[in-house]
Amino acid sequence: MAQQEDVFKKIVSHCKEYGFVFPSSELYDGLGAVYDYGQNGVELKNNIKQYWWQSMVQLHDNIVGLDSAIFMHPTIWKASGHVDAFNDPLIDNRDSKKRYRADVLIEDQIAKYDEKIEKEVAKARKRFGDNFDEAKYRETSERVLEHQAKRDALEERYKEAMNGTDLQALKQIILDEEIVDPISGTRNWTDVRQFNLMFKTSMGSTADGSSDIYLRPETAQGIFVNYLNVQKTGRMKIPFGIAQIGKAFRNEIVARQFIFRMREFEQMEMQFFVKPGTEIDWFKNWKEMRMKWHQALGFGAENYRFHDHEKLAFYANAATDIEFKMPFGFKEVEGIHSRTNYDLTQHEKFSGKSIKYFDPETKESYTPYVIETSIGVDRMYLSVMCHAYQEEQLENGETRTVLKLPAALAPVKLAVLPLIKKDGLPEKAREIMNDLKFHFNCKYEEKDTIGKRYRRQDAIGTPYCITIDHETLTDNCVTLRDRDTMKQERVPISELRSLIEDKVTITGLLKKLQ
Amino acid sequence: MAQQEDVFKKIVSHCKEYGFVFPSSELYDGLGAVYDYGQNGVELKNNIKQYWWQSMVQLHDNIVGLDSAIFMHPTIWKASGHVDAFNDPLIDNRDSKKRYRADVLIEDQIAKYDEKIEKEVAKARKRFGDNFDEAKYRETSERVLEHQAKRDALEERYKEAMNGTDLQALKQIILDEEIVDPISGTRNWTDVRQFNLMFKTSMGSTADGSSDIYLRPETAQGIFVNYLNVQKTGRMKIPFGIAQIGKAFRNEIVARQFIFRMREFEQMEMQFFVKPGTEIDWFKNWKEMRMKWHQALGFGAENYRFHDHEKLAFYANAATDIEFKMPFGFKEVEGIHSRTNYDLTQHEKFSGKSIKYFDPETKESYTPYVIETSIGVDRMYLSVMCHAYQEEQLENGETRTVLKLPAALAPVKLAVLPLIKKDGLPEKAREIMNDLKFHFNCKYEEKDTIGKRYRRQDAIGTPYCITIDHETLTDNCVTLRDRDTMKQERVPISELRSLIEDKVTITGLLKKLQ
Repeated sequence: MAQQEDVFKKIVSHCKEYGFVFPSSELYDGLGAVYDYGQNGVELKNNIKQYWWQSMVQLHDNIVGLDSAIFMHPTIWKASGHVDAFNDPLIDNRDSKKRYRADVLIEDQIAKYDEKIEKEVAKARKRFGDNFDEAKYRETSERVLEHQAKRDALEERYKEAMNGTDLQALKQIILDEEIVDPISGTRNWTDVRQFNLMFKTSMGSTADGSSDIYLRPETAQGIFVNYLNVQKTGRMKIPFGIAQIGKAFRNEIVARQFIFRMREFEQMEMQFFVKPGTEIDWFKNWKEMRMKWHQALGFGAENYRFHDHEKLAFYANAATDIEFKMPFGFKEVEGIHSRTNYDLTQHEKFSGKSIKYFDPETKESYTPYVIETSIGVDRMYLSVMCHAYQEEQLENGETRTVLKLPAALAPVKLAVLPLIKKDGLPEKAREIMNDLKFHFNCKYEEKDTIGKRYRRQDAIGTPYCITIDHETLTDNCVTLRDRDTMKQERVPISELRSLIEDKVTITGLLKKLQ
Repeated sequence: MAQQEDVFKKIVSHCKEYGFVFPSSELYDGLGAVYDYGQNGVELKNNIKQYWWQSMVQLHDNIVGLDSAIFMHPTIWKASGHVDAFNDPLIDNRDSKKRYRADVLIEDQIAKYDEKIEKEVAKARKRFGDNFDEAKYRETSERVLEHQAKRDALEERYKEAMNGTDLQALKQIILDEEIVDPISGTRNWTDVRQFNLMFKTSMGSTADGSSDIYLRPETAQGIFVNYLNVQKTGRMKIPFGIAQIGKAFRNEIVARQFIFRMREFEQMEMQFFVKPGTEIDWFKNWKEMRMKWHQALGFGAENYRFHDHEKLAFYANAATDIEFKMPFGFKEVEGIHSRTNYDLTQHEKFSGKSIKYFDPETKESYTPYVIETSIGVDRMYLSVMCHAYQEEQLENGETRTVLKLPAALAPVKLAVLPLIKKDGLPEKAREIMNDLKFHFNCKYEEKDTIGKRYRRQDAIGTPYCITIDHETLTDNCVTLRDRDTMKQERVPISELRSLIEDKVTITGLLKKLQ
């Protein structure tokens, strides 16, 4: 675990050092839980978005896009339930004057029991050495069983309180568990209160009838309120989907794990409208399709798993997460939800307008059911970075840091490197690049030794490098070097594009979904 | 003029009817000056952004991208001057309780003088018929000259008041011109007051040290505060540029002309960092490059002009707009500004940190000068729609509405149309599409006659249609129809991709910039 945490720290610092992710407003000492994407980060992020967008909109005849605004009519968030129920339970410590999320305090407490159990196991492992039967020990050790029982009871109580939004019960847990404020060290807690996670602002000037509006906490509602506009003007027939990529905002009190949970983040959401009664089949269908999409990146099936929800939101009739193995454990990168007709029905109720779908074949009108697929772009980005980051021992004893990004997602596709800075080699390199740059992102570099330049390209995940040497001037061939194998081969300039294009473009990646 | 207004109305309604732009939150009776992009609109918008992005980042070795967050440290907006000086002058009418922008009231008054002049000219034209010498009339008619003199005096006074931010003078103009509230019809005005255009919100919960933050009113500052991070981690040497596309927000009191001035909008900005003293050369250089970029769209050079600023912002030493001929006159679509070292110097001052560039060749440190190129994506979009929208009289007497979009920007590149819905033609059509859809956006349509389907594709600007008929099954050829000429030719399926790919892709458009 400690080792995994080290790896994660290294990834975070690599992100900064190589222009992937900078802390936002760093010059002004930063802004909590907000990050900027640097020159390489923006390209990686755009490539992820393009892969998703094209797989949705271009490969599916019955899915179209949408780009709805961040600002929406405030009543939409009444209808969606966000005004009333999108809250975090907060508690203040009267001594430190600090505010905490009550649920996080309790989750940390649960984690402490887990730590105690792991400590016991580690001690026993040391004691028994090679003969240690861990599974048996966990089942029989009195100490472990005691911790486990306390842990499970606490978790049970906690889940019950959360599901019932019982604020008094949350506070009682904090008191009973004798949880102390990490700053003041005291248990002088206030009551638990609800705190809405939406950012609020005012539109218009006051005399003009200014109104409070929210920054959207999810992009989905922009799709729901537009679904009939899209269906009618696009002549869509059910089943059909609407895909959207855009920013969303949540005023998280505890923002954690780098870009995993941010206050400003980006979503890729697709809402698929189906006939009532067919939704579970479509849900299964989308589970499969989405998993295929993730695995086409080539990270290995063992790094993914489904986490089906046992307890569902009251409006859902099926839900699952696709989890990816991060350095800090399996974490959700995508959610797939069967949301029934809840949202559309709410918008009918709150807008007072009928938004039923008219089926031209059966001549019926009905409110469609909805299957949602929802990815946090930044999480997806983090999962890609985490898996791509590798430190390799080379034969000569050196270590190289290499980002083994899927080539189609890499910020730079081809580095163009003249062996030396004279004898016409830079000019030849430019000439090659001036042709290829129309087709994919190339980078010219002439400074330092070839070895150093290779390392720099490895560090930003560039899948291919070419070197231009004196022979190039006569034989019109270059040395093509592969990032992963580090193998080099001599290839004609005229074949370069066709050799690598399918590997480095989104089109090539999409073909894996066939 | 009236005719042009009609055309504009038609474009707005076409945008809605064909899934390009919907009023935001329409289901809830809309939200002022906010719009959503529909299924075709989002593709057009993405294509515009991709054209800009690739031309900047992919074609220029010394320009890289960035994606900084909307949320930034509030002191940044102190440093940039937006907290103190990004205001609109507002005035209330005490009877109607309505609030207006004082400058807009006065500009409307100036427009009224213009209307009076045009009315005089129109009357005279009617009176004199064919012999009418308009230029001479304008120079000699006493009435016209009188209106003109009043107009010019008013404009002069207005500009002076605005440049000096003299709120009392603005009010005096409104009183002197006897401007009345269009609602109450009275002149019962309050004083003019400043109103900041930034949207404000709160981050964090109150006990946690919540702080007021702003939604960025421009993307440029995100580049300035990151410029040294990018320069160092990307090993950039001056001159170099940083490009960024992103949302910005301004709480405009008077939002006008559809998507031309919105409260939530998108910018494409590039800041180019140069050595002090070279900025005017670079400014001229960028003027030329940017004009070339616009004109590569093929709309005709006569629709563009530069508008060099005579009065400059105090920190600028050169500025120009690229204006495009909209139905409501020549309007700015891009600004090019020589911003000196003002912004960077301010950030040094407010952050207390040195952000000077170290020149490895001269071993000097200096604060770079900046040339900015700044496009409003939505304005650009509107200019494209306005120029593309055409109503054509056909030989058979019918009218067709066609969007003559540059093919590389069109939402759908190729419509795949089986002649009839049976005999294996739909299957053949799908087969063709299943290959091409990996390369560009295709749309399958089988309903209605071919003629109707062509019209629908014309209306969304699809550059090419293919029809699959019975012969296709044996000769493997299809009929390829060109949107603009409406000419049809028989082509082998195997040649389709190579025939149109260069015309419909961004790569093809970029090649025009060579």
